[in-house]
Amino acid sequence: MTVRIAVAGASGYAGGELLRLLLAHPEVEIGALTAGGNAGSPLGEHQPHLLPLADRVLLDTTAETLAGHDVVFLALPHGRSAEIAAQLGPDTLVVDCGADHRLTDAAAWTRWYGGEHAGSWPYGLPELPGGREALVGTKRVAVPGCYPTVSSLALAPAVAAGIIEDDVTVVAVSGTSGAGKSSKPHLIGSEVMGSLSAYGVAGAHRHTPEITQNLSAVAGREVGVSFTPVLAPLPRGILATCSARLTSDEDPRAVYEKAYRDEPFVHLLPEGRWPTTAAVLGSNAVQLQLAVDPDLRRLVVVAAVDNLTKGTAGAAVQSMNIAIGLPETTGLSTVGVAP
Amino acid sequence: MTVRIAVAGASGYAGGELLRLLLAHPEVEIGALTAGGNAGSPLGEHQPHLLPLADRVLLDTTAETLAGHDVVFLALPHGRSAEIAAQLGPDTLVVDCGADHRLTDAAAWTRWYGGEHAGSWPYGLPELPGGREALVGTKRVAVPGCYPTVSSLALAPAVAAGIIEDDVTVVAVSGTSGAGKSSKPHLIGSEVMGSLSAYGVAGAHRHTPEITQNLSAVAGREVGVSFTPVLAPLPRGILATCSARLTSDEDPRAVYEKAYRDEPFVHLLPEGRWPTTAAVLGSNAVQLQLAVDPDLRRLVVVAAVDNLTKGTAGAAVQSMNIAIGLPETTGLSTVGVAP
Amino acid sequence: MTVRIAVAGASGYAGGELLRLLLAHPEVEIGALTAGGNAGSPLGEHQPHLLPLADRVLLDTTAETLAGHDVVFLALPHGRSAEIAAQLGPDTLVVDCGADHRLTDAAAWTRWYGGEHAGSWPYGLPELPGGREALVGTKRVAVPGCYPTVSSLALAPAVAAGIIEDDVTVVAVSGTSGAGKSSKPHLIGSEVMGSLSAYGVAGAHRHTPEITQNLSAVAGREVGVSFTPVLAPLPRGILATCSARLTSDEDPRAVYEKAYRDEPFVHLLPEGRWPTTAAVLGSNAVQLQLAVDPDLRRLVVVAAVDNLTKGTAGAAVQSMNIAIGLPETTGLSTVGVAP
Amino acid sequence: MTVRIAVAGASGYAGGELLRLLLAHPEVEIGALTAGGNAGSPLGEHQPHLLPLADRVLLDTTAETLAGHDVVFLALPHGRSAEIAAQLGPDTLVVDCGADHRLTDAAAWTRWYGGEHAGSWPYGLPELPGGREALVGTKRVAVPGCYPTVSSLALAPAVAAGIIEDDVTVVAVSGTSGAGKSSKPHLIGSEVMGSLSAYGVAGAHRHTPEITQNLSAVAGREVGVSFTPVLAPLPRGILATCSARLTSDEDPRAVYEKAYRDEPFVHLLPEGRWPTTAAVLGSNAVQLQLAVDPDLRRLVVVAAVDNLTKGTAGAAVQSMNIAIGLPETTGLSTVGVAP
Repeated sequence: MTVRIAVAGASGYAGGELLRLLLAHPEVEIGALTAGGNAGSPLGEHQPHLLPLADRVLLDTTAETLAGHDVVFLALPHGRSAEIAAQLGPDTLVVDCGADHRLTDAAAWTRWYGGEHAGSWPYGLPELPGGREALVGTKRVAVPGCYPTVSSLALAPAVAAGIIEDDVTVVAVSGTSGAGKSSKPHLIGSEVMGSLSAYGVAGAHRHTPEITQNLSAVAGREVGVSFTPVLAPLPRGILATCSARLTSDEDPRAVYEKAYRDEPFVHLLPEGRWPTTAAVLGSNAVQLQLAVDPDLRRLVVVAAVDNLTKGTAGAAVQSMNIAIGLPETTGLSTVGVAP
Repeated sequence: MTVRIAVAGASGYAGGELLRLLLAHPEVEIGALTAGGNAGSPLGEHQPHLLPLADRVLLDTTAETLAGHDVVFLALPHGRSAEIAAQLGPDTLVVDCGADHRLTDAAAWTRWYGGEHAGSWPYGLPELPGGREALVGTKRVAVPGCYPTVSSLALAPAVAAGIIEDDVTVVAVSGTSGAGKSSKPHLIGSEVMGSLSAYGVAGAHRHTPEITQNLSAVAGREVGVSFTPVLAPLPRGILATCSARLTSDEDPRAVYEKAYRDEPFVHLLPEGRWPTTAAVLGSNAVQLQLAVDPDLRRLVVVAAVDNLTKGTAGAAVQSMNIAIGLPETTGLSTVGVAP
Repeated sequence: MTVRIAVAGASGYAGGELLRLLLAHPEVEIGALTAGGNAGSPLGEHQPHLLPLADRVLLDTTAETLAGHDVVFLALPHGRSAEIAAQLGPDTLVVDCGADHRLTDAAAWTRWYGGEHAGSWPYGLPELPGGREALVGTKRVAVPGCYPTVSSLALAPAVAAGIIEDDVTVVAVSGTSGAGKSSKPHLIGSEVMGSLSAYGVAGAHRHTPEITQNLSAVAGREVGVSFTPVLAPLPRGILATCSARLTSDEDPRAVYEKAYRDEPFVHLLPEGRWPTTAAVLGSNAVQLQLAVDPDLRRLVVVAAVDNLTKGTAGAAVQSMNIAIGLPETTGLSTVGVAP
Repeated sequence: MTVRIAVAGASGYAGGELLRLLLAHPEVEIGALTAGGNAGSPLGEHQPHLLPLADRVLLDTTAETLAGHDVVFLALPHGRSAEIAAQLGPDTLVVDCGADHRLTDAAAWTRWYGGEHAGSWPYGLPELPGGREALVGTKRVAVPGCYPTVSSLALAPAVAAGIIEDDVTVVAVSGTSGAGKSSKPHLIGSEVMGSLSAYGVAGAHRHTPEITQNLSAVAGREVGVSFTPVLAPLPRGILATCSARLTSDEDPRAVYEKAYRDEPFVHLLPEGRWPTTAAVLGSNAVQLQLAVDPDLRRLVVVAAVDNLTKGTAGAAVQSMNIAIGLPETTGLSTVGVAP
């Protein structure tokens, strides 16, 4: 099978990571690459690490340039995907790395993003209960946010098993690429190197309702999520520390082992080893470890993910594989680039 | 007044930071500098940033070399301080940057550090209720751990005011210098740069009982503290994200403003600005901000500190100033080195 | 003596470093702080590390706001300084951290910067032969560029002694703050962390003619300078590797020892120790070491400087001290902030 | 074809990178993994990024454990390879990532490494003139050092074409992984982050004679190489700035285009784009750019390489491919992991 793909937003970080993965995908042929302001220039100016595509000229992001592909990946600012997708026709698989179609609740969408909700699409996190089935044969995929990916995978087994309170705390430390290739003053190198900062504190980050949606769906009731993202000086990687009080004597380790035993990308580490983001750099793996605080009876789960790979582009490719009937792991690796 | 000081452990990070601060202290004369394995070599080999002291030769850490000073700062591995202090005589002010005399509970000491408890000393965190008074005129000071400093200052006002539940969560992201100048494999540059990792999870870090002790003393009852430290790729700085559910309708901001209004080193930032560790690098300031999650009624406090300055050596100098009757801020700055 | 100073460009990196140093200067009173686009906002929004000045509101950069000060520091984009300085009157000491008045050759100015040359001012590098004398009593100072500072100090003694060929090579690795607080795409954190890049190669960087000017003035004849700057992932610091073939049997070490023996800020390290930028972070010191390649008879000098301190703001304060008759080292330190 | 391989020294950085590449090599089956002090423990403890091999137990590095493989990769401290290789038999392809067999001159070996020279092997840098031919069918390969790889590739075309003087200067800035996974005090994270340092200055680094050997072989006469390595705060990557005076009017660009036109891994970038190490992270590509200083008639070549990939393990795999008759690029990529 040769799948002809296009990438809209090829000059950004999500677009670059999609192309890095797709260049190693054995069933894919890379078609149109499009951009906004960078249209007309060669990809090599923007993604010098993608040597085999260096001379490809970026096209405008329009329905015309994206037409004629089996799969179109959208790596666009939120608000743009719905517009483009509407013009792509129901036979094209559209995989949206943006936020437009993640939230199921229209009111929540409007509260967090403003404007009108474009509707929700099947959610590209196959490791959640029922997640894989929802993707088979779909023509539309909403790729999860990076923080929701790691937070949901860290907590879903405990929530599903009903062994923790519905009051969870997530502090997720992230590299800077999650903020995109935008040159905002607080993201310049001189500001981020040697510094740590919190942002979007106390429910002010847009990924909060997405994590809440995922865990509440798993629980079958509303789960309260306190989410704080912290920016740290590294380009890639998220380490999430997630905790909640235990309500059961069941062994949490057994719960997680059972939940992820057959998952190709989610790895509960052997006892005594803790995840690091370096170990998943460039890989589609999630590494997890957990412990119980004996004095507090609180479960703490720590999870590491590469925000651009499993947190974005890897999940997009994984979802495509499922949607079009390829083996789920095709073109994806659990091997990181370290040190 | 000229205070003659000695520093034991001058070749390590805490020792180096003590000397950096003491070189700028107008009332201090720097006497003996001692070390363990590095004794006999010039300080310049170990602390090339301390040019004015480059030719000073490190002495052995013994009661003899430390004798004859008004103040002796101990920056030694835990277990060593009690032994040395016992030989220094009751008229010498001994400021211990190590852990030996921080915990008041002998059983807790033995559980966390092993061996016999050497007793507790007045605790060098003057910003805690009653903390300043306990230091006036003392001849012995136990300098707090870096994580307990930032965590306790972030939560003490809310605990003291009784506006939060006795179940607090702290995730503190730290630079690497807190681990000392030891060359453990996981601390080499190739491992820490580009990576994030958690350690001492679920109550397994020795600073947990110290935070619990501080907050419980403030509350007058046992406070449960879930503490997770995360290692990030920067040399200095801790950013702590602390949260607990509110139990009161009182405005937390007013509580914190009142608590820290007159403190020279603890700054609640104006609304809308969040702390960064870069802003306190090399300074004795703590920067704080807080917010309430409107959906969860959870208070989130974020605090930034330099682990080597206010987190260790700055607190030591501040405590010395109080103990010997100098103005508390002498030789200490609230100006950071950024970017 | 109380010197009333103003800083134009207070929200940028050079302005911030000037204020950090001036806050610790015992003879200075800080007056007007001005900015371009940031005028009207409090300094704390832009320089959160300068707590004592956090509430100061930035004024517009005009002759009016800068009037009435003994000293005005200009930390402005090139081209702006001449214009402002012309309006400040001959009795005000104007210290220009920008490039406008560094080059003595009008044709070189026009070639490298474009536009008309505003004339040259006494050059703020007192450690060059005759440099100190040129600053005494002056009312105008051109602060050197950061690369010219470290490169000139590394090579001047050998050039002055006539022991090397007039064909020198400088490769200077720099942190990112030298590029200013501008959010150009290649300077965002995600791009600079984990990467090294060269720029302005083969005589294309504007600091090349300034280094050439300095060394040629020392030599009394044209010296050829091959200069390559390299960008590395750290906020501050420049490490310059400078080399040239020896033409004499004289001991280079003796030449450098003699040249810098009485300099308070330039330190030739003891044999066997090599400079690091961490050791001079935030300090006004330059650390130097040299060696001779025995097979090639080539002298290699390595020098470390903090580009914002001795490379910019420290040199500005040092020059002010000389110009107004204060001890040269007032308010300046040779102690770095490490690790 | 299935090639059965073993890796000696699998717990170090070179060993880890070999395994990362070999896991993606379609013709390879991974056999014995051996180590020194880490023998007996699972690979996952040392290389957590190599998930598919996490449970493999490390064996002792002996001729017995390494026997029975088609190819044995040695990633051992220098001095160990010759000893092991002697026991492996002439039919096994031995690819030595260490220094034992790189130098052809026994006296140079003894001067730089001490002890007796074990003899030289075919040199694994196929892009040098005659380099590819020397590897076809060989049973022994000496993988080049990382600095010699990038320096030699940057300068060989100009040397071969006779367009520069025999007096070249190389300043190569490197990440820390080149120093291996050893926990020397100057390599701990707190020391390297935020700092730059030079080492092995003025011909004191062991890679100097190897670069000299390569360029002299290309030139057919002795070339003088001034080599200075600089350590910078990133885990991987070398950026080398190489320069020499031009002796010819020939266009250097044409010389380099011709030299590398057909090379799969060495890329001369289009004019105006300069190499970055991020663009080659984890890739086997070398990115080059050059310019001529118009005032000095000096050629400056800047080259970027990943020290662990093309600088070590990638070159090892590339050499294996040539030696055993596989297409040279099998299992190797020119796609980097960025940002």
